[in-house]
Amino acid sequence: MKDSIAALRGLEKQLYAYQYALSVMEFDEATAAPADSADGRAAAAEVLSRARFDLLINDDTAALLALAAEEAEDGQQAAEVRELQRQYDEICNIPAEEYAAFASLTQQAIPAWAKAKRSNDFAAFAPYLEKIVAARRRQAACIDPNRNPYEVWLDRYERGLTIARCDEFFATLRKTIVPLLAEIQKRGCPVRTDFLEQDWPMDAQRALSANIMELWGLDAAHVVLSESEHPFTSGFWRGDVRITTHYMPRDMVSNLYSVAHEGGHALYDAGSDPALDFTVLSGGSTMGLHESQSRLFENYVGRSAAFLRYLWPTLTDLFPAQLAGVTFEEFYRAVNRAEPGLIRTEADELTYALHVMVRYELEKALIQGTLTVAELPAAWNAKYKEYLGVEVPDDTHGVLQDIHWACGDMGYFPSYALGSAYAAQAMDDLRTTLDVDAQLAAGDLRPLKNALSDRLWKYGQSREPQWLVQSLCGGAFDAAHYTGYLTRKYTELYEL
Amino acid sequence: MKDSIAALRGLEKQLYAYQYALSVMEFDEATAAPADSADGRAAAAEVLSRARFDLLINDDTAALLALAAEEAEDGQQAAEVRELQRQYDEICNIPAEEYAAFASLTQQAIPAWAKAKRSNDFAAFAPYLEKIVAARRRQAACIDPNRNPYEVWLDRYERGLTIARCDEFFATLRKTIVPLLAEIQKRGCPVRTDFLEQDWPMDAQRALSANIMELWGLDAAHVVLSESEHPFTSGFWRGDVRITTHYMPRDMVSNLYSVAHEGGHALYDAGSDPALDFTVLSGGSTMGLHESQSRLFENYVGRSAAFLRYLWPTLTDLFPAQLAGVTFEEFYRAVNRAEPGLIRTEADELTYALHVMVRYELEKALIQGTLTVAELPAAWNAKYKEYLGVEVPDDTHGVLQDIHWACGDMGYFPSYALGSAYAAQAMDDLRTTLDVDAQLAAGDLRPLKNALSDRLWKYGQSREPQWLVQSLCGGAFDAAHYTGYLTRKYTELYEL
Repeated sequence: MKDSIAALRGLEKQLYAYQYALSVMEFDEATAAPADSADGRAAAAEVLSRARFDLLINDDTAALLALAAEEAEDGQQAAEVRELQRQYDEICNIPAEEYAAFASLTQQAIPAWAKAKRSNDFAAFAPYLEKIVAARRRQAACIDPNRNPYEVWLDRYERGLTIARCDEFFATLRKTIVPLLAEIQKRGCPVRTDFLEQDWPMDAQRALSANIMELWGLDAAHVVLSESEHPFTSGFWRGDVRITTHYMPRDMVSNLYSVAHEGGHALYDAGSDPALDFTVLSGGSTMGLHESQSRLFENYVGRSAAFLRYLWPTLTDLFPAQLAGVTFEEFYRAVNRAEPGLIRTEADELTYALHVMVRYELEKALIQGTLTVAELPAAWNAKYKEYLGVEVPDDTHGVLQDIHWACGDMGYFPSYALGSAYAAQAMDDLRTTLDVDAQLAAGDLRPLKNALSDRLWKYGQSREPQWLVQSLCGGAFDAAHYTGYLTRKYTELYEL
Repeated sequence: MKDSIAALRGLEKQLYAYQYALSVMEFDEATAAPADSADGRAAAAEVLSRARFDLLINDDTAALLALAAEEAEDGQQAAEVRELQRQYDEICNIPAEEYAAFASLTQQAIPAWAKAKRSNDFAAFAPYLEKIVAARRRQAACIDPNRNPYEVWLDRYERGLTIARCDEFFATLRKTIVPLLAEIQKRGCPVRTDFLEQDWPMDAQRALSANIMELWGLDAAHVVLSESEHPFTSGFWRGDVRITTHYMPRDMVSNLYSVAHEGGHALYDAGSDPALDFTVLSGGSTMGLHESQSRLFENYVGRSAAFLRYLWPTLTDLFPAQLAGVTFEEFYRAVNRAEPGLIRTEADELTYALHVMVRYELEKALIQGTLTVAELPAAWNAKYKEYLGVEVPDDTHGVLQDIHWACGDMGYFPSYALGSAYAAQAMDDLRTTLDVDAQLAAGDLRPLKNALSDRLWKYGQSREPQWLVQSLCGGAFDAAHYTGYLTRKYTELYEL
């Protein structure tokens, strides 16, 4: 190994250490920390984040990257240089003062958003959002003055993605989902849901979590389940991945699909080639790819008839009283029902993409300057009426529901819908060689996992995201697989 | 504030951040981490420890400390300089290669010790211990070539402590405890213990923990209880202190006194003056002082007749079936019984100091060169026979039981006994102005806590340890308070 590569590896390990510490601190905050302990955490995080920044952004690193780019001797080394250079450029394209001012702005915007949401007061948040939109437009011009500013951000979150492809994607979804949902509401066979809300014993819910983790094949020596207000996954490194869930005494389905979903993220994070350990290439790639794996295990496995039929005896064992008068068919239909609602995070598999589409269209218009922040709430409510057929009663349950824009994330939402679509295409392609339904019906996820590892997991970030999407999907991405899946599933489910 | 002091504060905040991260990582390891996740944690900890070392040990820091020592304008600033200079000197007195080699040696010695303990194979651990003893002798000579090498280490752990005072301390204990224990065994009134081992419901045990934390006045917004294999306390900063316990289904007393003990540590860590936040002066002082507070709340409060009488209705409410045929007097005597045993961590209040004395005498002899590692197991067994009257069946339950020597800690054990003695004297002195028994009998710990805060907690590390000992004890330290307490308590308990 050339000296420059060895030096690069040393830098990567240092960057890993700071990221590890910050990840553990965040995980601890969500799972264990006392309520009023934020000051000390913020003070420590500020120092460590700054130290990480200083490690990466300096003239020595710039020179090292240039030399290492010439001296890289294999694909992995070249990928390490490429990924570090990308991280370097992402920061360096934006002037340091702009970078610091933006960090400060979002730190103020987040509590302002939280307060505005609590008090249903969009006007109180509007000045922050205006500044964020203006900053994101300025920054996009720094990164690439010749490109549509919204596309600059799309490309940052889901690298290689364009507005044209994104528009086409959502147009396809809209053409399928909006009429399908209308059909369901007009003449869909009713779904029994009365049994969903009742007392579900906690011990049995915990046993079910353990059961799902075992079925997913999550190695308890490397992946553990904790509890937090909102479920999430944090991969500290390949050999230490944390997932969390939130138990609700009156709702068993929520925990079941939280564990199924986060378990998919965990399989991806824990599945990188060990050769990538402690480099910038270990762990899952873009958020769209990450979401493809969580949704694949949540919906395409966890909500499938084949798998649920396998799980049914376990469920009736764990919850004999609760499921006494419920048939398998009723349970399957209940956990797959489609219902238009106001809140994205509570949406079902069919309507979820519509929630995302509203946000995509609105944030694109904001960044492109065709919509003002003042016009945003009315535009939000109009789109919810148009796509989902629901009346938004207030901004708390409307435009203020998500934290993302307050964090400065604009261009991030599309990934949520893309993930489901990647997964649908991957499943279609996998079915050409694997008898997935028979395997799920037998509770055997190994063939599926092996295939996903070969197509995606093992690469970590050593390949470009769009290469990984093709590898996962078995060809060029085509949203028709996703719309086809939704049409088949919901036509059958609602006997349309 | 002078520029040098401002720069020093900046350095202290950076050091705090690294310590915070390392503390969270250790806490996470003990409470939440999956079993086989150590590699990634070690890789991160190595980078962060090294970065912390580099922050402190460099010519700029040396020059800054010299300037700040001249420019300090108040007692706190002077104390910050003094404490940082002490930390700096502690490291710089030892050559860098020796420092690094010793870290590497103990990293190998710890797993070697664990394996030797499991397989009862002292010979396998002996070569590591020989190297550790030799290194600690060499290092002591670097720190102060004119001083007894064991005293160099005593002084490092419990600053200001000498061999002469330590010898006198243990001689006093021995003169009291050994004959007292013999009397108890010869003619002590028998203690009923049959009810201690039975099924103690977990929910009630958890409720009892919460009850103790509330009685101790631990603010749930800043102090939380988690679970780990071995109970411990970790103060991340004044506003975030973690304590842990270990629940045992067949033993209620273990958790009760773990929470009582760790709760004492937590009160001390959370009790520093806020003006010390994020400086090197925040948090408890030496380990002996820390242990004085944990033992005070565990034994002098938690095992007192006055407090237990107050707690008794809660206990019988929480465990009605388990305590149905048990009188208060029987319970009080059972949790205070004295029984010679083999294992330090399971020892009672009376015999605990004897376990510590064995270790003190042996580690002193090792470092002074009057005992070889080969002779150690026989010497250990002889002292257990002499002081505690027990036959050691094997090294696993003898000389291999504690991790401390494998970690390189020699000179640390005396602090455990000193803490109890400091606490005994403090309680005697506090009783001259406070009606402690009446307050404990009413479940009111506030007067006691206020007094301890005034004497000790609020100072953090802003005063020298020996000053703090005097402040806590209300005068020069005198072990007679401790031996007097033990004599009174056990004479009455066993009706001698």
